Amino acid sequence: MPPEPCAETADFVFNQTMLRIRDPQASLDFYTRVLGMTVIQHLDFPEAAFSLYFLGYVRPDDAPVPADRTARTAYAFARQGILELTHNHGTENDPDFAYHHGNSEPRGFGHIGLAVPDVEAVCQRFEALGVPFVKRPNEGRMKGLAFIRDPDGYWIEILNPQVLARSV
Amino acid sequence: MPPEPCAETADFVFNQTMLRIRDPQASLDFYTRVLGMTVIQHLDFPEAAFSLYFLGYVRPDDAPVPADRTARTAYAFARQGILELTHNHGTENDPDFAYHHGNSEPRGFGHIGLAVPDVEAVCQRFEALGVPFVKRPNEGRMKGLAFIRDPDGYWIEILNPQVLARSV
Repeated sequence: MPPEPCAETADFVFNQTMLRIRDPQASLDFYTRVLGMTVIQHLDFPEAAFSLYFLGYVRPDDAPVPADRTARTAYAFARQGILELTHNHGTENDPDFAYHHGNSEPRGFGHIGLAVPDVEAVCQRFEALGVPFVKRPNEGRMKGLAFIRDPDGYWIEILNPQVLARSV
Repeated sequence: MPPEPCAETADFVFNQTMLRIRDPQASLDFYTRVLGMTVIQHLDFPEAAFSLYFLGYVRPDDAPVPADRTARTAYAFARQGILELTHNHGTENDPDFAYHHGNSEPRGFGHIGLAVPDVEAVCQRFEALGVPFVKRPNEGRMKGLAFIRDPDGYWIEILNPQVLARSV
């Protein structure tokens, strides 16, 4: 068994996962309107020609997102469960541009995953909204579990913790 | 501005980020001993020849990790900030095997990021432990921010939320 965590790491927080995106208009629409995340902060670096978007689920029990710009940025860097989307300016105008989702060669990153209360109901809504599926809940060996694609083709697992825990 | 999150997504949780790993012995040592995460659950699928490891920071304020196997699995699938490591059996015995970290072509996934209280002190400890750096805190334009590599070469950003927020 691995050793217990040490005092030197007692205050570490797994803050963010960064994915590059081709078109922020498509990705922000998807992650907010379809998946319900909030854009907590948005930083533009015009000289270096890129922008960063920090998204996450802000819930009633969470500390509220500060209005002050610097405090809001610190909030985005301090908390768990942040999705950082990086947009290198101009890719949205190149119809042939694509990022690599990691599930074909060369493989590496696999997916992000969302826990939801009812996979079937959530996936029916995704179907109605035209979200592309890698795997529908009733397909394959793992029933009740789905994978959808974001606008860049990154895979997003849709799971119910209790249901999935009983099946593995 | 994107629309406000809707009721259909009110209970979604950004649960996990999945990365494939070549050698679980190396990766579990790194993520527990060096980065201080806890292995919350470990699932073996011998027929399909893969194993999954669910890691995260379990803090005194968090709900304790259940002892019961199914409840522990559900805990790993329900909470924020879980790193899922996927090991396809046998890769650890192939010295030429490597996963793609996403920061050379074809690009896509960029990094995960950890918020820490003192980037300099944390990075001095990483140096002493032999952790490879992509960028040390005093290198490049973004002072006070570091990137290290995990055993598969995936990039991990090491940041202090307050310091970084004042610099961007």
